[in-house]
Amino acid sequence: MAESARESAQKARSASRKLQALATEERVAMLNRIADALLANETEILAENAKDVQEAGDKISQALLQRLVLKPQKIQQLAEGIRAIAAEEEPIRRVISRMEVAEGLTLEKQTAPIGVLLIIFEARPDALPQIAALALRSGNGLLLKGGKEAAHSNAVLHKIIVEAIGPMGADLIHLITSRDEIADLLKLDDVIDLVIPRGGNALVSHIQANTKIPVLGHADGICHVYVDAAADLDKAIKIVVDAKVDYAAACNAVEKVLVHESLVANGGLGKIQSALQDAGVTVHAGERLQQLQPDSKLPAAPSARHEYSSLDVTLDVAADMAAAIDHIHANGSGHTECIVTEDAEAAEAFLRGVDSACVFHNASTRFADGFRFGLGAEVGISTSRIHARGPVGVEGLLTSKWVMRGSGQVVAKDSGVTYTHKKQRIA
Amino acid sequence: MAESARESAQKARSASRKLQALATEERVAMLNRIADALLANETEILAENAKDVQEAGDKISQALLQRLVLKPQKIQQLAEGIRAIAAEEEPIRRVISRMEVAEGLTLEKQTAPIGVLLIIFEARPDALPQIAALALRSGNGLLLKGGKEAAHSNAVLHKIIVEAIGPMGADLIHLITSRDEIADLLKLDDVIDLVIPRGGNALVSHIQANTKIPVLGHADGICHVYVDAAADLDKAIKIVVDAKVDYAAACNAVEKVLVHESLVANGGLGKIQSALQDAGVTVHAGERLQQLQPDSKLPAAPSARHEYSSLDVTLDVAADMAAAIDHIHANGSGHTECIVTEDAEAAEAFLRGVDSACVFHNASTRFADGFRFGLGAEVGISTSRIHARGPVGVEGLLTSKWVMRGSGQVVAKDSGVTYTHKKQRIA
Repeated sequence: MAESARESAQKARSASRKLQALATEERVAMLNRIADALLANETEILAENAKDVQEAGDKISQALLQRLVLKPQKIQQLAEGIRAIAAEEEPIRRVISRMEVAEGLTLEKQTAPIGVLLIIFEARPDALPQIAALALRSGNGLLLKGGKEAAHSNAVLHKIIVEAIGPMGADLIHLITSRDEIADLLKLDDVIDLVIPRGGNALVSHIQANTKIPVLGHADGICHVYVDAAADLDKAIKIVVDAKVDYAAACNAVEKVLVHESLVANGGLGKIQSALQDAGVTVHAGERLQQLQPDSKLPAAPSARHEYSSLDVTLDVAADMAAAIDHIHANGSGHTECIVTEDAEAAEAFLRGVDSACVFHNASTRFADGFRFGLGAEVGISTSRIHARGPVGVEGLLTSKWVMRGSGQVVAKDSGVTYTHKKQRIA
Repeated sequence: MAESARESAQKARSASRKLQALATEERVAMLNRIADALLANETEILAENAKDVQEAGDKISQALLQRLVLKPQKIQQLAEGIRAIAAEEEPIRRVISRMEVAEGLTLEKQTAPIGVLLIIFEARPDALPQIAALALRSGNGLLLKGGKEAAHSNAVLHKIIVEAIGPMGADLIHLITSRDEIADLLKLDDVIDLVIPRGGNALVSHIQANTKIPVLGHADGICHVYVDAAADLDKAIKIVVDAKVDYAAACNAVEKVLVHESLVANGGLGKIQSALQDAGVTVHAGERLQQLQPDSKLPAAPSARHEYSSLDVTLDVAADMAAAIDHIHANGSGHTECIVTEDAEAAEAFLRGVDSACVFHNASTRFADGFRFGLGAEVGISTSRIHARGPVGVEGLLTSKWVMRGSGQVVAKDSGVTYTHKKQRIA
């Protein structure tokens, strides 16, 4: 009888405990063996991938096909990426804080693996080795549920990785190929610690709505740029255009540009609108702009809260910064917001007052990204407020653990323990 | 019509955003005003509390009654506790990390309030001011659902606190007195960020099983002490007795003592057993001890995984440390485990190998506590692996926020941004 997803999760936890007890060098060696094995088995990987592409035929869109296809160059990049993850600083047992609790009694807070992760990903087979490498580096066990379109590719990549890891490989990383559907996996909240969906909004929303397991991810990315009265207009135009045009479908692309009212009369708003239109963007008028310029030819925005994910943007007017912040809180998704201004005090008030995962001053919203943030490999971007927020790197796959070292101390009264609670420096 | 719990949560979020934008001094002043107001209104608080006590009559146990009763000294302590919370270092906008992303482009990770907390607490009315103070200090909005037994006390405490806070008080801290039952509150996962149950195992388990909102807490506390072959027997006895007898019903009390096999023959096991019995503890034999000593008069442990929460403990034998660790992983609750040994290498292997929130060497499990850990006020102890683990102080009520400061940078190619990703020291 095939192993159930529950059994897989239990084996993954047990294996992750063995993995995290290993020395750094052993875990690094596993990663380098995986990189070697991907390159050594390139022919087989490409052959299995070709089967997926053939079976997909013209059932899938050109965009999806692009994601499905593996090429020698992509495999080379994957191997390099895994070596980079191997070369990073040890993420486990890093000391976060240290304290002398009493004489001869010290307490450390250390990083520790979370345990068992469930990753649900769509058509991209290259996500599998990347995620496996991140999980391995951070000491976690893994359940992988890939899209059916990539079934052959996922199977061969999983086989190669498990073999390269060695004896604990098969227990540590499970490719869920049984008939267990996503709905069944999402019920395993007692044996899975975190779900990470890697796919479109629909997938993420569905998962968030249907599980008690914590979900690392975001459904919406409704980002705002507020152009202040004291903005440098050239900077504003450069930032607004970049935030939309660089990659219109990205979650960190701007969906609404809020302009201070004073820019209506002085022509600033018109220049921003023209610059966006010249860059190929369809500008939609928000509610207040429609009221102020009822004769404008701009199409109306579909709603105050709309994610276009295309070369479209809403342009609207805010009476002042406080109104802009209220508008963002009422209609944003808490992802990334930016103020463009030369007024340092206004900038700090905005950075302090806006309750989003990322808040920027005079920089494109497109910087909200794990690689640009220097986090190394990106696990995802979270708009949740629990555990991790904003772009998440390997640290999102870690929790903490308290380690106390004593010499026989007890808590009972008159036991001779005098609490000092002295924070100690970490080297 | 009474305000719904959903409306309360939305108002709390809006108020928390205003609160977190305030300067430190303003939030500290609010706390000190609350402390003053509690003392100034002592007579009214005691009168309302007396109503609760009277209505409870003999419907509640003596233990519950003890928790329900407020006395002048308790109110004095509450006020002092709130002043201590006010005097602590500012928890919001503390810089966790800082990086130069590129020339003129810096990125900070700062602490930020989570947003809206739901606290569900049982009979103790003194929990209300404590929790309100912690939420206020950390910039969070609050929904409080107290036990019916303390209805009068909770109402008067809530009124005093809201008035002391000032204009935003009523929006920030809501006492849910409407007919909304806990089940309804637990459905509000889109407007509440975190639930913190303050009560017994039954309450916590019920909440964990019935909500998609993340829960900070623990249901079980099945803690182990492993007495190694190289243990100092005097230390072992002192630690084991303290870990059980100091407060047998505590979640960090030991429930199982695992003794290395070599201590059976050399009499160590017998001495540990006698010491526990002399201290008034009923010692139950675990499975392996029953096999080794079939003629012992010890009662059998109810199961391999049992939380007594009383002056009872399971004593059992492990073939070696690896077997002890496996036993802990199979039967523990991931709360707190301790090794007693003079072998430094064995100690480090145990600290590294045991996957629990707290792992101790030669110290009583009873140290696993927010106050003893020097965290100040304790929010709870978490055995979850997401967000917070182990004893949780104010930092458990915080998330993070990314703040980027630039001078017009954009991400498009040829935009002149060269990534440096230089980590900077935090003062």
